[in-house]
Amino acid sequence: MERKKIILDCDPGHDDAVAILLAGGSPALELLGITVVAGNQTLENTQRNARQVVQWLGLQVPVFAGCGQPMVREKMTAGDIHGKTGLDGPAFPPLVCPLEQEHAVAFLVRTLLASEGDITVVTTGPMTNLAMALRLEPRIAEKIQRIVLMGGSCGSGNVSPAAEFNILADPEAAHVCFTAGRPITMVGLDVTRKALCYPAVVERMGRVGNEASRLFVELMGHFCRTQKEVFGWEGGPLHDPVTIAWLLDPTVLTTRPMNVRIDIGGGQSYGRTNCDGFDYLRLPHNADVAVEIDVEKFWDIIEAGLRRYGA
Amino acid sequence: MERKKIILDCDPGHDDAVAILLAGGSPALELLGITVVAGNQTLENTQRNARQVVQWLGLQVPVFAGCGQPMVREKMTAGDIHGKTGLDGPAFPPLVCPLEQEHAVAFLVRTLLASEGDITVVTTGPMTNLAMALRLEPRIAEKIQRIVLMGGSCGSGNVSPAAEFNILADPEAAHVCFTAGRPITMVGLDVTRKALCYPAVVERMGRVGNEASRLFVELMGHFCRTQKEVFGWEGGPLHDPVTIAWLLDPTVLTTRPMNVRIDIGGGQSYGRTNCDGFDYLRLPHNADVAVEIDVEKFWDIIEAGLRRYGA
Amino acid sequence: MERKKIILDCDPGHDDAVAILLAGGSPALELLGITVVAGNQTLENTQRNARQVVQWLGLQVPVFAGCGQPMVREKMTAGDIHGKTGLDGPAFPPLVCPLEQEHAVAFLVRTLLASEGDITVVTTGPMTNLAMALRLEPRIAEKIQRIVLMGGSCGSGNVSPAAEFNILADPEAAHVCFTAGRPITMVGLDVTRKALCYPAVVERMGRVGNEASRLFVELMGHFCRTQKEVFGWEGGPLHDPVTIAWLLDPTVLTTRPMNVRIDIGGGQSYGRTNCDGFDYLRLPHNADVAVEIDVEKFWDIIEAGLRRYGA
Amino acid sequence: MERKKIILDCDPGHDDAVAILLAGGSPALELLGITVVAGNQTLENTQRNARQVVQWLGLQVPVFAGCGQPMVREKMTAGDIHGKTGLDGPAFPPLVCPLEQEHAVAFLVRTLLASEGDITVVTTGPMTNLAMALRLEPRIAEKIQRIVLMGGSCGSGNVSPAAEFNILADPEAAHVCFTAGRPITMVGLDVTRKALCYPAVVERMGRVGNEASRLFVELMGHFCRTQKEVFGWEGGPLHDPVTIAWLLDPTVLTTRPMNVRIDIGGGQSYGRTNCDGFDYLRLPHNADVAVEIDVEKFWDIIEAGLRRYGA
Repeated sequence: MERKKIILDCDPGHDDAVAILLAGGSPALELLGITVVAGNQTLENTQRNARQVVQWLGLQVPVFAGCGQPMVREKMTAGDIHGKTGLDGPAFPPLVCPLEQEHAVAFLVRTLLASEGDITVVTTGPMTNLAMALRLEPRIAEKIQRIVLMGGSCGSGNVSPAAEFNILADPEAAHVCFTAGRPITMVGLDVTRKALCYPAVVERMGRVGNEASRLFVELMGHFCRTQKEVFGWEGGPLHDPVTIAWLLDPTVLTTRPMNVRIDIGGGQSYGRTNCDGFDYLRLPHNADVAVEIDVEKFWDIIEAGLRRYGA
Repeated sequence: MERKKIILDCDPGHDDAVAILLAGGSPALELLGITVVAGNQTLENTQRNARQVVQWLGLQVPVFAGCGQPMVREKMTAGDIHGKTGLDGPAFPPLVCPLEQEHAVAFLVRTLLASEGDITVVTTGPMTNLAMALRLEPRIAEKIQRIVLMGGSCGSGNVSPAAEFNILADPEAAHVCFTAGRPITMVGLDVTRKALCYPAVVERMGRVGNEASRLFVELMGHFCRTQKEVFGWEGGPLHDPVTIAWLLDPTVLTTRPMNVRIDIGGGQSYGRTNCDGFDYLRLPHNADVAVEIDVEKFWDIIEAGLRRYGA
Repeated sequence: MERKKIILDCDPGHDDAVAILLAGGSPALELLGITVVAGNQTLENTQRNARQVVQWLGLQVPVFAGCGQPMVREKMTAGDIHGKTGLDGPAFPPLVCPLEQEHAVAFLVRTLLASEGDITVVTTGPMTNLAMALRLEPRIAEKIQRIVLMGGSCGSGNVSPAAEFNILADPEAAHVCFTAGRPITMVGLDVTRKALCYPAVVERMGRVGNEASRLFVELMGHFCRTQKEVFGWEGGPLHDPVTIAWLLDPTVLTTRPMNVRIDIGGGQSYGRTNCDGFDYLRLPHNADVAVEIDVEKFWDIIEAGLRRYGA
Repeated sequence: MERKKIILDCDPGHDDAVAILLAGGSPALELLGITVVAGNQTLENTQRNARQVVQWLGLQVPVFAGCGQPMVREKMTAGDIHGKTGLDGPAFPPLVCPLEQEHAVAFLVRTLLASEGDITVVTTGPMTNLAMALRLEPRIAEKIQRIVLMGGSCGSGNVSPAAEFNILADPEAAHVCFTAGRPITMVGLDVTRKALCYPAVVERMGRVGNEASRLFVELMGHFCRTQKEVFGWEGGPLHDPVTIAWLLDPTVLTTRPMNVRIDIGGGQSYGRTNCDGFDYLRLPHNADVAVEIDVEKFWDIIEAGLRRYGA
């Protein structure tokens, strides 16, 4: 089987860490590199977190630091959910996994330009790095096989009534990516809000009993506790790994092609992904938007992903 | 039992007609007047339609024509759903029910000012008339017991990805009403989309067998056909009467107090009701937003409403 | 000579008072009524000020109170320039001049509808009253001979870098008026900023030596002092009377037809009058915009206006 | 005398060419590089034009191609003024001056990072390259001694009533630069519109009689003809070289510190530089804005600049 080449652009973040775990362990995917962006936390934290995860899992994947702030708007972070470090929970060992010297945007430009158009770019944070690469070197657009993003919502948001975090953290970058003319799979809150990681899920994954499983348990145990403290509910949504799960098994999501526009007007709906599922506006379809998720299948994919890391 | 005083501001419209039917026939409500606005169709059509319905049902309620265009934006109508007249379907007899000389806005101002603060204003069209009244004579605000509107959506819209028709048809008017400082019950697409009038519902209501029932069948039979032709599905949402049903039996809806702001920025999310059900923005709660509907109870209320018109 | 019929819609305000003086004393104008709006001060203050001026000058003109707040946006006033009452300076006698019972908007609708299309509406405050009238009764549009407004700027503003006060105080109302399809003369800061009332002008007008002259001196003496205290310069611009001066002698201004659009987007340029004097956008011309003023002629018109009030 | 280090970021363009001429020939300036952006024409044209000018003048300055499109918005060019090539007029010889391999943004990042904070960045086109550099590597901000830009207007625009071309061509980039926290000198239409290159000026410069003079004459002769054809007037504004003239002799301009914000809301005032010269908004001063120009001195500087190129 040919492995699907991907670059994972992320801002770890607990759910990003699980996305790295799932992508890095799968024989179906060739993870060319991990590019990091500010988002859930500052760039200093997110790039360190990415390396901690790579090191913990023993992955041989280069990690590149990218943009520390959004393209146009002022910075925002999501510190209360992911904790002080952005990856509170596990007691990580001293960090030895290196940070690449090359800028994440330069890596994206170089790698995509040199490719045969067979690389999928997965973003699970603000889309700043990919958008900057597209604007620095527009010729990479045609080299991107597909953009798969965790972000957006057809319905309501999760940081404002209108907007989801990854999009609101850099709406202009999302706009650049959504208007780049490439195939897009948008995995938004409409499905990820159903991927609720209840304590029972944490227990189930804990029974796998390897290092990856232990990382999952420490991360998601902390994540569940924070969700309860901040929002008062059991079980938090495991947003980011749904993107990788879909690459591994597209039947886990139902997607529908539609027009999606990003509100970059700066008003109260700033960062909204206006998804025209009913074609009210008769505009060209530029994204395949996930509208349903098979939650049981998703957890099966996660468990299988953990088991890839051995006994 | 004391009857609850209401003014019904509408733009008939098939579902507005059912709202008139429900409000006009109930002993629990005192329908002081029907004020009409442009919306589903031009003012010329909507005021004539209102009078046709009043006449058909034998109601003794004055009908006032109001604003023929929105406060600020250019006009938009919804002709394809409600047909050429805005109330296609029934063969109405020659019109004898008069139109009042007084402007709807003047009626609202005069009646509310003279009241003891015990009048509920129900709007099932664009909120232009009420907003104009509030701006002409701000002292009426404190005289309004509650505003109950059909309009808006926490999730996606029905004329754009962001906006519901009644709000998008006059976002500035909605903004004026939502910032008037009065209690508001917002009955939006989140619940009215579940009040689907399938052919089986039309049959059930037809079995009531009186003049009101006959009107319902002719209206909703046409409405269902149009929904099928325009959108391709069985059964259309009976939006507007949900407001009256809630006045008759508040248990038909579950509402939650929250902050609601109207996007009046004029961009792609123009007309969106940004409903902050999770208090992301920690703004004051200015509306009780309907989040669930007991559909069976709703149809029971409709049937009981039809039966009020005798055998 | 036939007298030109006008309605003066204003928010006195020192310069509004001089506009009343000029319009009320001229045999060339028939001042049908003074309609008042909130702006320079609250409606309570501006309507009282209008009556004080009418009474002082012995005019037989009805005064109508209109809207106390803008159509859509929240209220703003300009208290620091015009003082606590909005007309600080003169010691006005006890007020006997009555306020009409009819609402200013109702007066505008009734008078314009009954007219033969020969009435010019002059606005020297926020355009709320006229815009509300246009929306309540769109048929008045074709009855308006011309709208002459003090407001706007081709260049920079006077309350924000983008906006002039009368427009920013109700941008949506200005938008309604500028899109009403009637002839418009816009007298903006581009010319009124040159109508600087220096102490020497006050002295000159004082030498006229009648009651009108005394009012002018007390008003403008105060106005000049405030300009100096607030802004630090000698002589303040006498904005509003330029409109009336143009009606009395059109050669006092050079105007150019062009497209003017009002920025109602709510952002940092909210309230800007985008005047396309170079036809960059090739949009239809909807206003004659004053671009030059003959300042000497203007002061001659003012002096002649004062002399109309006798010795 | 120590030479002031500058990088010139431009989109030649006739007036950009004169800016290169003036900067490249002066012993007071050390022109480290010319970075090129799309603007007056496509990047393909502007980078070629920059090299043609460098070659014609015999300058030893590297030329770097940068961004071919704005950060967020869709592309716009100004082809009608500058002609098909963006530098119509002179018959340029076959091009031998090379284009550097390094991306203009990479050059900016590398050069500024390695500097001692003594480099002034002059932009005479859309500010895309500098903004992209600031976002890719925020640490360069503190290394920029000053940003000197041709762009913006306190008054009206030159491509829309609100906006000047260089800003409207990439408003988001301008916003990034104006909020970068570095000293800024804004040379906008308020002064450059007075630097009118009449035929008499072209004649005067022609009398210098060297190669630089010949380039000036061929460029500005064409420029004047186009201005006349497109706008119908004699003499066009020589915008861009005013920036370099100010570096050579700051007394050529009067500047005032003020707050400047870029309208990036996307509405009708998109791209406006809201310059708060009267401190209406009491916001921090972030730019020194040119408000007056000594036109005679400016032409003297130009003539002296031409003479630097020998007899």
